[in-house]
Amino acid sequence: MRDDVNRTIKLRSRPVGEIDDSVFELSEEEVPEPGEGQALVRNLCLSLDPTNRVWISDTPSYLPPVGIGDVMRGLGVGRVVSSKSDDYAEGSLVSGLLGWQDYALVGEGTSAVGTPVPSDIEVPVEMLVGVLGITGITAYYGIEEIGQPQEGETVVISAAAGAVGSIAGQLAKIRGARAVGIVGSDEKAEWITGELGFNAAVNRRSPDWREQLAAACPGGIDVDFENAGGEIMDTVFGMLNFHARVVLCGLISQYNADTPPPGPVNFPALLSNRVTLQGFIILDYFDRFPEATAKLAQWVAEGRIKYRDTTVEGLENAPSALRMLFDGENVGKLLVKVADDAAVGAAG
Amino acid sequence: MRDDVNRTIKLRSRPVGEIDDSVFELSEEEVPEPGEGQALVRNLCLSLDPTNRVWISDTPSYLPPVGIGDVMRGLGVGRVVSSKSDDYAEGSLVSGLLGWQDYALVGEGTSAVGTPVPSDIEVPVEMLVGVLGITGITAYYGIEEIGQPQEGETVVISAAAGAVGSIAGQLAKIRGARAVGIVGSDEKAEWITGELGFNAAVNRRSPDWREQLAAACPGGIDVDFENAGGEIMDTVFGMLNFHARVVLCGLISQYNADTPPPGPVNFPALLSNRVTLQGFIILDYFDRFPEATAKLAQWVAEGRIKYRDTTVEGLENAPSALRMLFDGENVGKLLVKVADDAAVGAAG
Repeated sequence: MRDDVNRTIKLRSRPVGEIDDSVFELSEEEVPEPGEGQALVRNLCLSLDPTNRVWISDTPSYLPPVGIGDVMRGLGVGRVVSSKSDDYAEGSLVSGLLGWQDYALVGEGTSAVGTPVPSDIEVPVEMLVGVLGITGITAYYGIEEIGQPQEGETVVISAAAGAVGSIAGQLAKIRGARAVGIVGSDEKAEWITGELGFNAAVNRRSPDWREQLAAACPGGIDVDFENAGGEIMDTVFGMLNFHARVVLCGLISQYNADTPPPGPVNFPALLSNRVTLQGFIILDYFDRFPEATAKLAQWVAEGRIKYRDTTVEGLENAPSALRMLFDGENVGKLLVKVADDAAVGAAG
Repeated sequence: MRDDVNRTIKLRSRPVGEIDDSVFELSEEEVPEPGEGQALVRNLCLSLDPTNRVWISDTPSYLPPVGIGDVMRGLGVGRVVSSKSDDYAEGSLVSGLLGWQDYALVGEGTSAVGTPVPSDIEVPVEMLVGVLGITGITAYYGIEEIGQPQEGETVVISAAAGAVGSIAGQLAKIRGARAVGIVGSDEKAEWITGELGFNAAVNRRSPDWREQLAAACPGGIDVDFENAGGEIMDTVFGMLNFHARVVLCGLISQYNADTPPPGPVNFPALLSNRVTLQGFIILDYFDRFPEATAKLAQWVAEGRIKYRDTTVEGLENAPSALRMLFDGENVGKLLVKVADDAAVGAAG
């Protein structure tokens, strides 16, 4: 299937605080033709991540902000529908920064970053941005390289029912550590303890969540897999053990703030407890993605890692879907389905 | 020389905020007799360090708080005046946690921690707690193991005219990095640039010190050797480069606070810039002290490291001397001279 129109979602204005309808706009354009060394990719699904919110802020970060009027930057998976590049075979899958649009050009001189998916990987495309993609890989290197929890140690994961957190806790368990998750609802708490095998879960909306967290970590906290920031992180800092590690992966509670949120009052605990804190952006591990994917695929196949997706239908719903991340409405990986692979694949 | 009286300075009450006269009290006791496996040490000089303030707070830290009524914990150097231990020869030097007192018992079953100084080290005792002791060693491992500045990188050192900071900047220079110091007076700024060879110094009491710091670090900051905390640290966090390292060595601006000071608002920069932050207590490197001392002694002998002491005479003045650290009155290492080594050595 090949539509005549390429719908794109562009950044219209920078949000102040929460994202409202003025931030993005949907445009319709002609489907571009690939030039020499390029390929045209039909986007199938997009990965929605807290970092999308960072990319549209005006503050300096690890990538330049998305420009006003530019197609929104986003991770996704698509299928090559026509190609003038030896790197991209027609009908093959591509994953990378394909953007919020129906079609992306990849290859020489394009702004999209697309990596061919090895043809021997036979999994649903959703897994390629989720548990076997950027999400699972983030959890993998955060735990295996930075947190390195040892047997019997206690790992606390914030946003633990989110895409990365839900995998990170299971990886901690595989290493023999205790996994304690901080989540935003009782349903999420039940999911991560009942289905995913976390040792304990704390609903941060409970009035006594701090006491619950202390009770769940009677020996203190050895690894903080930090996705939340704000008062959750600050509370965890106050419970860190000597030589604890902080995997500073995300600060989702702070991304929507229109004025800088207060810093962690318990910061001095990082000194007195000789804590190692590592700010962590998964793109730095780009060359090592295949190694992580292989491990994760094995553990998924063995049933040792379970995952869940929250799928929103339709490219046009990507902006409202992004808001779900900050309202805590998703469980597991949040995806936008842009096109049906069966239909695309049949025509490709 | 052996007095009949052992003067001790004990903790009378925990300070709230700044240290006043109610915090310590001077007592006079009999000089203790060493038992089997013990030695009696005449304290010669005490090292005054910001961490002394931490030890008398009630907050959990890397060592338990000094108990009310206990002799104040403190680093120092002394000479063995009588010994019933094979580990401590009479007349030899001992360094360690000897406490704020004229005499300390070391060896089996004592609370003091005293390490014999190898007899081939022939330097003034002041150097054994300063540039060749805990101070220099702290700077050494902070730079060599944690900060690891590379040639051409920019290292910012706060409290740069202090004991540790003044050495740390020179060690950064030895590695070929640029050293930029933040200090509390123009005189200190002149000392670290003129005498110690720092590339630049910023007086944090100048109204435009932030602009001065930015001008001194046109390529950003690669290593933050953090001794200060508070708004100084927060400002530095806002200028860190990708993959910067924070040697979290001290937070002197915060130790006297009677309510927890605000945390660093620029904390998210640690994530977006993939910063490694390491809380750092030099006692963790205890086994490796000799290695650092040997290197430091060599560089001092070669004139590549210069140092300065601020010496206060008399044990009884230790409490008021401690206040000098927080008022910024000392330059370089702050010491209390307890006894004259020539007199002690002569009798020992």
